[in-house]
Amino acid sequence: MRILSGIRPTGKVHVGHYVGVFENWIKLQNEGHDTFYFIADWHALTTHYEDTSELKHYTKDLARTLIAVGLDKSTLFVQSAVKEHAELMLIFSMVTPLSWLERVPTYKEMKQQLANKDLSNAGFLMYPVLQAADILIYKADGVPVGEDQVYHIELTREIARRFNYIFKKEIFPEPKELLSKVPKLLGTDGRKMSKSYGNTIPLITTENELSKMVLPMVTDPARKRRTDPGNPENCPVWDYHKAFGTADNEEEKQWVFEGCTQAKIGCVDCKKLLLKHMTEKLSPIWERYNSITEGQVQEIIENGNEKAREIAKQTMEEVRDAVKIMY
Amino acid sequence: MRILSGIRPTGKVHVGHYVGVFENWIKLQNEGHDTFYFIADWHALTTHYEDTSELKHYTKDLARTLIAVGLDKSTLFVQSAVKEHAELMLIFSMVTPLSWLERVPTYKEMKQQLANKDLSNAGFLMYPVLQAADILIYKADGVPVGEDQVYHIELTREIARRFNYIFKKEIFPEPKELLSKVPKLLGTDGRKMSKSYGNTIPLITTENELSKMVLPMVTDPARKRRTDPGNPENCPVWDYHKAFGTADNEEEKQWVFEGCTQAKIGCVDCKKLLLKHMTEKLSPIWERYNSITEGQVQEIIENGNEKAREIAKQTMEEVRDAVKIMY
Repeated sequence: MRILSGIRPTGKVHVGHYVGVFENWIKLQNEGHDTFYFIADWHALTTHYEDTSELKHYTKDLARTLIAVGLDKSTLFVQSAVKEHAELMLIFSMVTPLSWLERVPTYKEMKQQLANKDLSNAGFLMYPVLQAADILIYKADGVPVGEDQVYHIELTREIARRFNYIFKKEIFPEPKELLSKVPKLLGTDGRKMSKSYGNTIPLITTENELSKMVLPMVTDPARKRRTDPGNPENCPVWDYHKAFGTADNEEEKQWVFEGCTQAKIGCVDCKKLLLKHMTEKLSPIWERYNSITEGQVQEIIENGNEKAREIAKQTMEEVRDAVKIMY
Repeated sequence: MRILSGIRPTGKVHVGHYVGVFENWIKLQNEGHDTFYFIADWHALTTHYEDTSELKHYTKDLARTLIAVGLDKSTLFVQSAVKEHAELMLIFSMVTPLSWLERVPTYKEMKQQLANKDLSNAGFLMYPVLQAADILIYKADGVPVGEDQVYHIELTREIARRFNYIFKKEIFPEPKELLSKVPKLLGTDGRKMSKSYGNTIPLITTENELSKMVLPMVTDPARKRRTDPGNPENCPVWDYHKAFGTADNEEEKQWVFEGCTQAKIGCVDCKKLLLKHMTEKLSPIWERYNSITEGQVQEIIENGNEKAREIAKQTMEEVRDAVKIMY
């Protein structure tokens, strides 16, 4: 099965991305699928065109991070390196009814959320068309996405169907969304993890820095004092424990639940255990991140770009043939 | 001055195109400007995506026609051969407010005119953004267009300005529309010349065929009989005379006016004179059209594509540098 997914280089990657996205990408890779993961830098422009000073930096850093998390059997590439995405988007725009785009739920929603930015640009409306091109140009079978992206994949299927129908050729398969249940990690202050709240835990850090973020984390609000009993189910730290393995260890799980609900342990004790698990899991990533040279990152990405480009070129030849256009 | 203009390969070229478009293109070329003329095959898809069976044929035929009319000192190329147009359109879509596109007068108008087709596709809305990319990628100074396209050029200037402002670099000059007064030619039945009315006079034809179209042409409705006086100012044939040189010849002009207004000549006499002028002007084009080999057409277009591509590539390097995107 060919799997494709992408991530936008709009900021520093945090542990929420690791748990919510990369772990799933790694799982799919290790199941033996033909996995393609890309850095969606054109997509980053839709919301971040006004300040692109960090775009290249974030793109490179994301490339290094994808390598560091262990996606070594996947094709890693940068969207803007495969110009065919833009050409296919242009072709798709001809067969995509505007009404399909205007009814995209994330369209109105995101516009509201980011009301302080001027998002009413044409690129923002065209986002799902470019996304359809990203996916269909590789004839991907499955696309790991979050809940909020399901409609986009549905739209991708509709565009594939409409193209195949209009141009009377079964070029594009209909990709499936691959939803995975992931523990939602909140920010260190208990709110949604978001760069703008300054409450994120970056994926790439050091043990020392990590402890400075984890130890003061907000816990169950009912546990005001050390002697107050708490409930892990109401505690954002417990979500981290689930994400980083404590919940899979019966003994540790019991220690946390008993300790918390009976006020036998303090929150700091609990967080220290989390810190141990997080460090165990993340330190190999940190090591890889720090040991790869810029040249190695570049080589891996260039190879990925090349491989992606080859497939994209083949698909575009089929597309041009079906559309009966000269070039 | 660099001049750029394009024409969509959506059907057989008629004499209206010659008089309204090509003559002006030739004039600009012969004034020594750096002229670029292209066949807008991607643009043809916006309205003709449902049946592309003739797209390649029309594209090739248009290429041969452009050569035949004498644009031998211009760079002739095919839009879809220069993929950079698509990439620049994608970048421009990020900085183009949707509202700018929704207020394009031709958008609503053309939607009404072609109500029998499903035109509410995204590509139709994005048309002016692609057009801006077509023009600005060559940093054209002037764009010969018809009245109905003036707003598009205005929009192109606005996009250029906005791009330069957002990315803090004066990459794109603001092109001017070059309006030329051209005699409007009506169809043989006196209605607007249109393929769907079957009343067009193809540019490429033979003298025999031409006479079969010109001689039965509708004339001044007041001249029902040979003995009724007429008025050239109310006669569609007189517009043709103006376009094909009779009006520039005082003697002939007088012969027509006197003959018509005093019923001294019949309409057929008048049309025979027109036929003579049209044949004089068009037969060298027919000859060139028929004598060029397919290989020659291909070579000229490939050379044009290559030259256009080189400039487009240079501009895109500047664009990527300004946008600070990786590739």
